[in-house]
Amino acid sequence: MKEQALITPRTLSGFKDRLPQEAMAKSRLLRTVSEVFEGFGFVPIETPHLEYAEILVKQGSDEIQKELYRFFDHGGRDVALRFDQTVPLARFISQHRNALGLPFKRYAIGNVFRGERAQRGRYREFTQCDFDFIGSESIGSDAEIIQVIYASLKALGIERFTISMNNRKILNGICDYFGVKEQTSDVLRIIDKLDKIGEESVIKELVEELGLSQESARGILGFTSLKQERSSEEFFAKVASYEGLSDSLREGMGEMRALYAILDTLEMDRACYKINFSIARGLGYYTGIVYETTLDALPSIGSVCSGGRYDNLTQSFSKERMSGVGASIGVDRLLAALEELGLLEGRGTSAQVLVACMEESQLAYSYKVAERLRTLGIKSEVYPEAVKPKRSLAYANSKGHPYVAVIGEDELKQGVVTLKDMQWGDQKPCISIEAAAEILLG
Amino acid sequence: MKEQALITPRTLSGFKDRLPQEAMAKSRLLRTVSEVFEGFGFVPIETPHLEYAEILVKQGSDEIQKELYRFFDHGGRDVALRFDQTVPLARFISQHRNALGLPFKRYAIGNVFRGERAQRGRYREFTQCDFDFIGSESIGSDAEIIQVIYASLKALGIERFTISMNNRKILNGICDYFGVKEQTSDVLRIIDKLDKIGEESVIKELVEELGLSQESARGILGFTSLKQERSSEEFFAKVASYEGLSDSLREGMGEMRALYAILDTLEMDRACYKINFSIARGLGYYTGIVYETTLDALPSIGSVCSGGRYDNLTQSFSKERMSGVGASIGVDRLLAALEELGLLEGRGTSAQVLVACMEESQLAYSYKVAERLRTLGIKSEVYPEAVKPKRSLAYANSKGHPYVAVIGEDELKQGVVTLKDMQWGDQKPCISIEAAAEILLG
Repeated sequence: MKEQALITPRTLSGFKDRLPQEAMAKSRLLRTVSEVFEGFGFVPIETPHLEYAEILVKQGSDEIQKELYRFFDHGGRDVALRFDQTVPLARFISQHRNALGLPFKRYAIGNVFRGERAQRGRYREFTQCDFDFIGSESIGSDAEIIQVIYASLKALGIERFTISMNNRKILNGICDYFGVKEQTSDVLRIIDKLDKIGEESVIKELVEELGLSQESARGILGFTSLKQERSSEEFFAKVASYEGLSDSLREGMGEMRALYAILDTLEMDRACYKINFSIARGLGYYTGIVYETTLDALPSIGSVCSGGRYDNLTQSFSKERMSGVGASIGVDRLLAALEELGLLEGRGTSAQVLVACMEESQLAYSYKVAERLRTLGIKSEVYPEAVKPKRSLAYANSKGHPYVAVIGEDELKQGVVTLKDMQWGDQKPCISIEAAAEILLG
Repeated sequence: MKEQALITPRTLSGFKDRLPQEAMAKSRLLRTVSEVFEGFGFVPIETPHLEYAEILVKQGSDEIQKELYRFFDHGGRDVALRFDQTVPLARFISQHRNALGLPFKRYAIGNVFRGERAQRGRYREFTQCDFDFIGSESIGSDAEIIQVIYASLKALGIERFTISMNNRKILNGICDYFGVKEQTSDVLRIIDKLDKIGEESVIKELVEELGLSQESARGILGFTSLKQERSSEEFFAKVASYEGLSDSLREGMGEMRALYAILDTLEMDRACYKINFSIARGLGYYTGIVYETTLDALPSIGSVCSGGRYDNLTQSFSKERMSGVGASIGVDRLLAALEELGLLEGRGTSAQVLVACMEESQLAYSYKVAERLRTLGIKSEVYPEAVKPKRSLAYANSKGHPYVAVIGEDELKQGVVTLKDMQWGDQKPCISIEAAAEILLG
């Protein structure tokens, strides 16, 4: 047979493999938040990774269009890989509206593709975890999204975090008041950079790029620096005088009070959600309440869960106005945070115990022991060959099994195991499988 | 604003959306089998959907190459969407060999893409669920894959199924004996069609396409018609005389006996696994034990889980020989089977109860009730607006909530709920949340 040249095994730039430790952590995270979503009545849906390009392009920004993985398929169709799950959701809702029934609450966990310039920590394929509540304008659905964020982070073991909330109507209202209504989206885009570039640079951009007066720029910035420090009652009292400045401000503030009327009824820790007038969210489609979530121990990593209300999800596909509210969990960012907070298990195996034998004649018994342990609820792996304990212990050590059940001649004869604790090194010789199980369930 | 033309919402031909009911069933299936895999020490990994085309193409068959979604990316790279998870696994193992350590047991659940001619029940994007045991030639790892299949189907509630096993070495041996060694792979490809086209057509193809004599064709077919009907002991005795026919036959039969020496030690129901000499598996890379799994109640849907041992997984990437054994669960086929067997829950919601109020002033209390029910372990959804019971009951009815907790003036005042059983229609007026929880927990 002709020898073929070997191919260098490698991934594309901007794409990555996940090794077991990371893949397990991710799958646990997604399992945990899915349970939370389902606890609130959100249901999963799936849409294809590949769509007609015109479906995706219409609603995407120019930047997105440049980053789109777009090509012609076998049938000459102009197709593209999805760049988010929101545009496919709009297509999905429009297409299956009658089968679904409104209101409709869905979550979706899936990969999206953006041909961005490759840079550290940014990938061209990454996982999005979205949950949205479609077809209800009730402030209750905004409150519920906040609840879901709260419950998700708590379920992941994160104790201290802040959901910072604002309302686009409030920001629109203050722009109205300062007479820059037409430039609102540009103003918000610049204000959104506050954390990154600082106050003076933001004022400079507002004045030089958008032509605002120094007074307007400082006035708007002064307003967006307002945030709730203590109770909501105190904050609402403090900002009450602004309400009269414009209709939009009044409406936005009214919504925030209605939101609090629900949130403050609940058992949620009030310290975890606060109003912050600087939260703008870059995306153009938000029209109501918006929010970001930062971890108190790691504010520098930015928001791990952001979202808001939008009024016109399906405008490309249908004349019917469809309002919704939703948020997206930053899976990779949250994983990095959990690792930094020491909340990730660092093992390279799912198994609690490795069962290992020394002679071929004991192999079948090893499988029997593992089968019995599994029946007793213990994840159990068998070392597939008869080897010296040195080798199986090294394997367990490298993969992170907390225990090894060693099988030798005596263990087979007596129908028992010798259980070695890999952390402390001590071992219980020749104990029954049930006794081993009790220690393993520990 | 200029009115934009509406786009017809649609998916590409051969691609599909999954609505909540189906997506929930799929996610439950995958959660169940993942738990089983992890119980045996298999760990998840992830590889990108997009790879360098040369990585995928080298190992793929001609047919696969034609079906590949292949294009040039922004950087002019020749890239393609993966068509299976086995080639990416080979690339992954070669690339991360040192970090992983052998033996290595991984599972992978992901979507793959094949531009096949669109036909009923066949999709161009579909989900594969693979589990493989790399770097061990021990028959124990073959036995474990059989155990995992068994445990997965049992965990899904399927009671009666048959894992039909064979060994490529046995099939190679019989081809050797009949002097058609060079044509073994073509012979096996044709024999693999036995179920579809019948015995006479297979003989015709063997004779006419491959030029076998009638005697050889009938001899091979006679051999492949042998299968275990009762105990393995009886079967091994029956076929003992064939062992001397060739070295390969002897080796293959020896492996089957060693496999049974492990399997028969275990608690698995012996009726669920049987030797069947007609099992060939189409794929060229199998070299040892192979298997297929059919459901006794639905034999016509074909195999729901197939696999086998391969000797040269990483040959494109490395000179090191790497043996492995693995199988793949046919997710869509199994979902269809579970539905036909009545083993799928048919609801369109994850929630056990819908909490619904009649007046705006009761909305906050609804959220409080649902929060409390969740704390007690009950998945609870709130109807997001104050509506007449007629409307909320219709919503619960269409989505499949088993219960509705109705909130009115009295319920709010007394801090209770009225619980309506959607199946039987009866209701418990004004009971405490704890009493409602007890009913909901059944």
